[in-house]
Amino acid sequence: MRYTDLDKTESYKKLLSLKENAAARGGLDAARIRSCSVPMAGGLSYNWAAKAAGSGLIAVLAELAGEQELIDKYRALLDGETMNTGEGRKVLHHLLRGQLGKAVLHNGRDLGEFYRSERERFSAFAEKVRSGKLSGSTGKAFRHAVQIGIGGSDLGPRALYLALDNWAASRGRKKLSAAFISNVDPDDPSAVTAGLNLEETVFVLVSKSGVTQETLANELFVKNKLKNAGLDPGRHIVAVTSETSPLAHNPAYLDSFYIDDFIGGRYSSSSAVGGVILSMAFGPETFGEFLSGAHEADKLALERDITKNAALLDALLGVWERNVLAYPATAALPYSQALSRFPAHLQQLDMESNGKRVNRNGEPVAYATGPVVFGEPGTNGQHSFYQLLHQGTDIVPLQFVAFAESQRNDDLEVEGSPSQTKLNANLAAQIVAFAKGKDDPNRNKYFPGGRPSSLIHGKQLDPAALGSLLAHFENKVMFQGFVWNLNSFDQEGVQLGKILTKKVLSGASGDDALDEYGKLLGL
Amino acid sequence: MRYTDLDKTESYKKLLSLKENAAARGGLDAARIRSCSVPMAGGLSYNWAAKAAGSGLIAVLAELAGEQELIDKYRALLDGETMNTGEGRKVLHHLLRGQLGKAVLHNGRDLGEFYRSERERFSAFAEKVRSGKLSGSTGKAFRHAVQIGIGGSDLGPRALYLALDNWAASRGRKKLSAAFISNVDPDDPSAVTAGLNLEETVFVLVSKSGVTQETLANELFVKNKLKNAGLDPGRHIVAVTSETSPLAHNPAYLDSFYIDDFIGGRYSSSSAVGGVILSMAFGPETFGEFLSGAHEADKLALERDITKNAALLDALLGVWERNVLAYPATAALPYSQALSRFPAHLQQLDMESNGKRVNRNGEPVAYATGPVVFGEPGTNGQHSFYQLLHQGTDIVPLQFVAFAESQRNDDLEVEGSPSQTKLNANLAAQIVAFAKGKDDPNRNKYFPGGRPSSLIHGKQLDPAALGSLLAHFENKVMFQGFVWNLNSFDQEGVQLGKILTKKVLSGASGDDALDEYGKLLGL
Repeated sequence: MRYTDLDKTESYKKLLSLKENAAARGGLDAARIRSCSVPMAGGLSYNWAAKAAGSGLIAVLAELAGEQELIDKYRALLDGETMNTGEGRKVLHHLLRGQLGKAVLHNGRDLGEFYRSERERFSAFAEKVRSGKLSGSTGKAFRHAVQIGIGGSDLGPRALYLALDNWAASRGRKKLSAAFISNVDPDDPSAVTAGLNLEETVFVLVSKSGVTQETLANELFVKNKLKNAGLDPGRHIVAVTSETSPLAHNPAYLDSFYIDDFIGGRYSSSSAVGGVILSMAFGPETFGEFLSGAHEADKLALERDITKNAALLDALLGVWERNVLAYPATAALPYSQALSRFPAHLQQLDMESNGKRVNRNGEPVAYATGPVVFGEPGTNGQHSFYQLLHQGTDIVPLQFVAFAESQRNDDLEVEGSPSQTKLNANLAAQIVAFAKGKDDPNRNKYFPGGRPSSLIHGKQLDPAALGSLLAHFENKVMFQGFVWNLNSFDQEGVQLGKILTKKVLSGASGDDALDEYGKLLGL
Repeated sequence: MRYTDLDKTESYKKLLSLKENAAARGGLDAARIRSCSVPMAGGLSYNWAAKAAGSGLIAVLAELAGEQELIDKYRALLDGETMNTGEGRKVLHHLLRGQLGKAVLHNGRDLGEFYRSERERFSAFAEKVRSGKLSGSTGKAFRHAVQIGIGGSDLGPRALYLALDNWAASRGRKKLSAAFISNVDPDDPSAVTAGLNLEETVFVLVSKSGVTQETLANELFVKNKLKNAGLDPGRHIVAVTSETSPLAHNPAYLDSFYIDDFIGGRYSSSSAVGGVILSMAFGPETFGEFLSGAHEADKLALERDITKNAALLDALLGVWERNVLAYPATAALPYSQALSRFPAHLQQLDMESNGKRVNRNGEPVAYATGPVVFGEPGTNGQHSFYQLLHQGTDIVPLQFVAFAESQRNDDLEVEGSPSQTKLNANLAAQIVAFAKGKDDPNRNKYFPGGRPSSLIHGKQLDPAALGSLLAHFENKVMFQGFVWNLNSFDQEGVQLGKILTKKVLSGASGDDALDEYGKLLGL
C-alpha cells in the first residue's frame, strides 16, 4: 500500500484543474435529486443533488479514491493493521459492531471475541439493573444512571442517549433516565447530584486510561456525595476502563467492563463506553439494534463504486470543498430535536481526528486538513446563524439530516399541517434556497445561491438508523484522513495543555506568564 | 457622519501593510499580561496579552476607530437615529438597560419611559407568580415556567437562565424552574410538556411579530395539552409581543408585555423577552442586577481610548484577525459550566448580525465580514475539538471567559487542589500553550503556537457580571458592523426560506426540486 500526501497525487492535480467549473449551478431538479441518491444502512439515504457536482468531478474523485487506495486502507484497518501509526496501535471500533475482516489477534487473544464477551457481560449487568435484581446500597431499585466521563466518554454517549430517549420512552423500553457529568467545573457534578435521589442512582465511571484528571476528580466528588448520603459508593458505581488502567480489577466497584487501546475515545460509543449506560437506560436489545445499524453501514463502506458508497462519496466531496474550493467550515444541521447534541459529537469526531498539520509520518502537509465543524438543530438554526450561511462572505457546506416521522408520534395539525410536516417543509425550502438563491434588485434581499448541501434522510430515527448515522460519519472522517494521508486516530494536540496544567498546579511552573494567568484566575 | 466601506479607508491600507508583523510572537510574560488588561463592568476584565498585538498595531486600530467614527455612530444609535437602515428602524436595546443618550421619542412617546414601565409591569407580575398570589386554573401555585419562542426569543433567555440557575438556587432566589420549547419538531413540545405538572406551569409565549410559524404551532400544541389536562389555557399563558402584533391586547392571556420594532430579536434578552421568565424564576431584583451590569458596560463602551474600551478593542482586534490575517472562525470558550449555552447565543448574535455580503446601502462589499462562531465549555472542549485549534491547518482566534469562584460553592479537594483550581489551571495552561506552542523534534508533538486568544475574567458569574458579558459581545458586534459598514440589525437572509416553506406547505410550489425534496422527507 502507498501512503502519499494529497498534493503528490495525479488526481489532485486534475481536481485543481476542474476548479473553474465550481461556480456552475442551476440544474437542481427532480430528476437530478432522484439520480443523486445513495442507499445507506438502517433505512437511510444520502442525497448529494444540491452539491452541484457533475459527472466530470465524480470521475476524478473516483480516481482519487483509487489512487489513495481508500478501500484497501479501510480493509487493512479492519484486518488489524497498525493504522494509528504514532501510537503504534490498531484501530478496531468497527470490530465492536461485527467482524468484517480477518480475525484480529493480539497477545494471543481474539479481539472480536473479547469485545463480544464484554458486550455480553454488560448486557447481563444492564438487565439486572433494569429488572431491579441489582439495587443500590439501601435496596432501592436504580432509576437513574449518571455517566462520569469527558470527551469521547461523554459527547458520543450523551448524543446517543438524547437521540433515543423519546424513541425508547414512547415504546416502553426506557427504564432508567440518564444524566452526564463531564466538566471539572465543580458546579457540574454539584448540580447534577443535587438534582437526583442518590439512593436510586447508579454511576458509570468511564476513563480508558484511568488517569483522566477531570473524571477522577468527579469520581471522588460523587463518592463523597454518596458517603454523605449514607450510601456505600461501591454499590453505586460501575467502571468502564482498560484492563491495564489503575481503575481495573477493583472490587470496590459494582462491576467493571473493559475496552482496550485500539478503541479511540471519540470512536468508543459502540463499546462499553456508550453501551453500559444505553443498555441500562433503553435495554441491551436497543443497543444491539444500534450496533447492527452501524455494522451494516460499515459493510456498505467497503463498496468501491463511489456513487454507491455514501461515506466514501461524502468524504470525497468534502475534500473537494475543503481543498479545492477552500471552504473553511462545515455545518451539521439535523432537523430532529433528538439530535440536538449530535453536532457536538461530530465536532469532536471530525476536528480531533483530522485537525492535524502533519501526515501519518509526522511530516508537515502543505494543504488544508479537517474543517471547523459546528451545528444546531433546524429549525432553531434557521432563526440563528443561517443568515451568515445564506448571505455571508464565506461559503459553508451544509450537512442536513432529517426523518419523515417524529419519534413520539404526538403531533397537532395547525393551519392545515402537523408540526412534523412544517419541520420538513422548512428543510426542503432551505436546501433549495441555499442551492438556487434568489435574484432581487435590492441587493440586501439578493441570495447568491450556490451554497452546497447534502441530505441524509430516513423514515424515523430509530436505533438502527442512529447506528447507521454514527458509522457514516466515522467512516467519512476515516476516508478523509486517508485522502489527506493523516493519522486520524491520535490526538497529540491535547498533550501540551495537560503538561502545563500540571505545572500550574504544582505551584512552580517556571513560566511567569503561566503564573500570572493563574493569579488572574484566582489561583 | 461618514459611512465608508472598510477597504476605502486609509487606516485599512495601513493595517494591510502591517501584516508581515503578524507572525511576531514570544514576549508573553507577566509584565505584558499586566499591561494588556482593560477593566469591564460587573467586576470583569478583558485581557488581550495573548493576542501578540504590539503598539504599532494598536495605534493603527485606534486610527481606524477614529476614521470609521465608531463612537460617534454608537452615540447616534443611542440617540435614536435610524441605524437599521434597510428596515428604517431605530436600534434601542441599550435603552432597555438605562438612558445614555437623548430621550428617544417615537409617535410622541418617550421610549425609555415605555421600556421602564413595561419592566415595572412584568416585575410586579413576576412577584405575584413567585408569591403564589397568582396561580393556575386549579389554584395551585406555579412552580415551572416554560418559554415558547425561537431564535432570539429562545437562545439568549435560555443561555441566561442556565447561567444564573445555580447562582440563584444557592442563594435562595430561585422560585420557579424554567424550560424552553423552540423547535417546530413536535418531539420538542411533546417531551417538554410530558415532563411537567401542567397545573403548576406558566408558559411565556414570545413572538415580537406574532406570526412566527414555529412559535404559533407550539402555542397551539401547548394549549391543546392544557385543555386535555382539564386546565384553562388562558390562566396558564402570558404573552410577550409587540403592540401591533395579532397576539397583542388579547384578554385570553394572563397578561401581555410589550416590546417594539426597535428591539431586534437577538438583542432582546434585556427586554420582556428575557425579563419575564428570568424575573419569575430568579426574581425581579436578580434581573435588575443583570440590567445594571449591562448598562455599566454600555457606558464604558462610550470611551474613545481603545485601550480602555474592552468592547471596542475586542472588535478591532477581531477585524485585524478576520480581514488582515484572514482567520475564518472564532471560538467562544467559557470555563464555566453555567455558560454552557452562551456560545450558542453568541453564535446567533454574531453570525446573524454581521454575516452579510452587502453594506448598509445594499452594495456588495469586497472583504470578509462576520466569522463563523462556535464553542463549548472548557474543560469539555479540551477533550474534543482543541486538537484542531492547537495543530490544525487553520488558525482560530479564541475567546476565553472564566471566574475565580464557582457558583454553588460546593467543591472537593482531590490530590491537593479543589476542582475550581483545576478548572482554572487548565485554562491558564491552554492560553500559554496556544500562544507559545512547544518545539519538538517529533513534528507530531510540535505545537506551532502563535494562536491568539483573549480572556474575560472575574470573581464570580453573578447577574451583574453576566449583564456585562452580554453587553460586551453585543457592543463588540455593533462596533464590528460599523467597521465593516454593515447594517448589523436586520436579517434579510432568513426570508427566502420562509417564503419557500409556505410554497411547500401550500402543495403547489411550482418548483419540482422543492416538491421532490418534500417527497423524500415524507410530505
